[in-house]
Amino acid sequence: MNNFNFYSPTFFVFGKERENETGKLVKRFGGTKVLIHYGSGSVVKSGLLDRVKKSLSDAGIWFAELGGVVPNPRSGLVYKGIEISKNENIDFILAVGGGSVIDSAKAIALGTLYDGDFWDFYCGKRIEKALPVGTILTLTAAGSEGSMGTVITHENGMLKRAANHDVLRPAFSILNPELTCPLPPYQTACGAVDMMAHVMERYFTNTQNVEITDRLCEGILLSIINEAPKVMSNPDDYDARANLMWAGMVAHNDTCGVGRESDWASHQMEHELSGLYDVAHGAGLAVMFPAWMKYVLQQDVMRFAQFAVRVWGCEMDFQNPEKTALQGIERYEQFVSSLGMPIRFAQLGAKAEDIPTLVKTAGLGENTMGSFVKLTEEDIRKIYELAV
Amino acid sequence: MNNFNFYSPTFFVFGKERENETGKLVKRFGGTKVLIHYGSGSVVKSGLLDRVKKSLSDAGIWFAELGGVVPNPRSGLVYKGIEISKNENIDFILAVGGGSVIDSAKAIALGTLYDGDFWDFYCGKRIEKALPVGTILTLTAAGSEGSMGTVITHENGMLKRAANHDVLRPAFSILNPELTCPLPPYQTACGAVDMMAHVMERYFTNTQNVEITDRLCEGILLSIINEAPKVMSNPDDYDARANLMWAGMVAHNDTCGVGRESDWASHQMEHELSGLYDVAHGAGLAVMFPAWMKYVLQQDVMRFAQFAVRVWGCEMDFQNPEKTALQGIERYEQFVSSLGMPIRFAQLGAKAEDIPTLVKTAGLGENTMGSFVKLTEEDIRKIYELAV
Repeated sequence: MNNFNFYSPTFFVFGKERENETGKLVKRFGGTKVLIHYGSGSVVKSGLLDRVKKSLSDAGIWFAELGGVVPNPRSGLVYKGIEISKNENIDFILAVGGGSVIDSAKAIALGTLYDGDFWDFYCGKRIEKALPVGTILTLTAAGSEGSMGTVITHENGMLKRAANHDVLRPAFSILNPELTCPLPPYQTACGAVDMMAHVMERYFTNTQNVEITDRLCEGILLSIINEAPKVMSNPDDYDARANLMWAGMVAHNDTCGVGRESDWASHQMEHELSGLYDVAHGAGLAVMFPAWMKYVLQQDVMRFAQFAVRVWGCEMDFQNPEKTALQGIERYEQFVSSLGMPIRFAQLGAKAEDIPTLVKTAGLGENTMGSFVKLTEEDIRKIYELAV
Repeated sequence: MNNFNFYSPTFFVFGKERENETGKLVKRFGGTKVLIHYGSGSVVKSGLLDRVKKSLSDAGIWFAELGGVVPNPRSGLVYKGIEISKNENIDFILAVGGGSVIDSAKAIALGTLYDGDFWDFYCGKRIEKALPVGTILTLTAAGSEGSMGTVITHENGMLKRAANHDVLRPAFSILNPELTCPLPPYQTACGAVDMMAHVMERYFTNTQNVEITDRLCEGILLSIINEAPKVMSNPDDYDARANLMWAGMVAHNDTCGVGRESDWASHQMEHELSGLYDVAHGAGLAVMFPAWMKYVLQQDVMRFAQFAVRVWGCEMDFQNPEKTALQGIERYEQFVSSLGMPIRFAQLGAKAEDIPTLVKTAGLGENTMGSFVKLTEEDIRKIYELAV
């Protein structure tokens, strides 16, 4: 097992009607002037935003508002948020929404305490501080409610890039599964796929003898596999929504990933895909992950066999472990298909002739991507081709 | 799933030689005058204490020392620690040792900021504040390095009682698996049993549809079952020690227990046992747990069957689930026996004729203990008898 640090100081407030505690929580974490950040009108129409505002007002907390975050959140709105925050001396960013809103809020939190261009942090500049962020999660997927990460797409070139630091872990996150019940099946499924990817990107590792994190990863995957179909057939199944919601957090706050090398090549390749076509992140992952798995399988056939047996309940073929390994990948494809997800380029609206563009935008040059297998530009091209 | 809060703000610093970062970490968390708290001479003899002191000195941090913590830590030393802390204006307690040392340090941290008797908090007084505690863990078992709990035995009557609050979660915990390699097999085994108990006390619940925490619990148990025997046969197996060490933390920081009722009756009954005989906590649990399981089995046969199948790999007897359930309990007994642990009173040095005393000390009266099954005094007596 590798040496590691693990720090997940977020205060999680989970369950029914917990959003009514927002004001109290902002106060607890030192907020006095809040920027409420959200996406589309759904949080307005559902009355959630009103409940949140009431809770803030009841606690005597001043707030400004900025809506309009889109999936694959853009730099333009981040610049606007930073401007408001600086002008109004905002000291707390409150994200009401899914991963995109939270990621955008984290970017604003970074940029408000920085004199330069916030995008610097997404180009590798070292992060030192950020305003505290609180979240009220309405979509189980990205894990941003407990993670140290944020992903933003810059409108100049549609570059999708990530920034990571412990100061970006939310001060508090309110997780009310009821808020996720109105989600359409497609978005629910995208969320499940995203969560599974967060686990699998930690699972496929060259680090040996990490049984505890292997088992935690497998446990989270098994839960998602058990609960996601329940939600698809009954969107109001509170317990299934609740299980998915906690799974989504644990999948990405790194409890299940410490002490081992992880591999984010699939995520990176998907970022190029959703950057170019503006498809849902989860849908892009559903297409890219099996292609990546098939391509890197030979790196550790037994690990893929373990995945097949422990996660998908495949019977181990002791004469031919590769057969079992391939069966695991096939089961993954069947599962995400059963959720209504695409598993090939065409289903996504992506085109084979764009592959050179995707490879070029990834901007690898002579560098490599990933760690389980270090992928060259040529490798990436082949993986995109496998996804066609 | 039940509503819950989850807050585990401890900064975990895991791996080889990480104790050399102690000074830096104390500084990061605001400590300027430290009380180093430890147990027997082993941390002195091994040179660990010297390395820790050097790290503090290098960081310019003043410290006092208080050794002598014993297993099932006593109130007497806590009073002494509080006196030192108050006299010397200590602002940070540093525990170097296992769960007993950490629990004792937490008690000192509580008492230093309180004018009354620290024992009040172990008798139900509401906790509001405590000095920050840092830990350097040398024994994987109690999970106190990440938990909100502390258990102290009062010398007046040998009462063993717990106190719990989020302010008792350590500010940082250094987990270096190498430090656990010198542990004798008996203590290692006791640790594994304690960790398993922390998981099982969360696992056996009346809360329905908590798949994610079920699966996390099972994953942790599977890891311990896989790794503990490796450590018993090769005490210097770093990776196995490391897996156990992270499992011990996750088992008890509540990641795997949120959203569900848990049941601590076995722990409570063991407390009476180790209070009276001063046996190792893990050894007492190895005896009490199977007795408790057999007694409460009928409450939810299918949950015990799930435990047998998923954790112990038993084949499900669909005609007779109770048979499978009992097989799981048997496998647990076989496993802890294989680690050299006692599973009956006699092996522990406990006596059937003391059962009335054990029941009386528990002090239930007309109250009940536990939640999976609410146990009366009569139930407890029967469970102790099953353990004979």
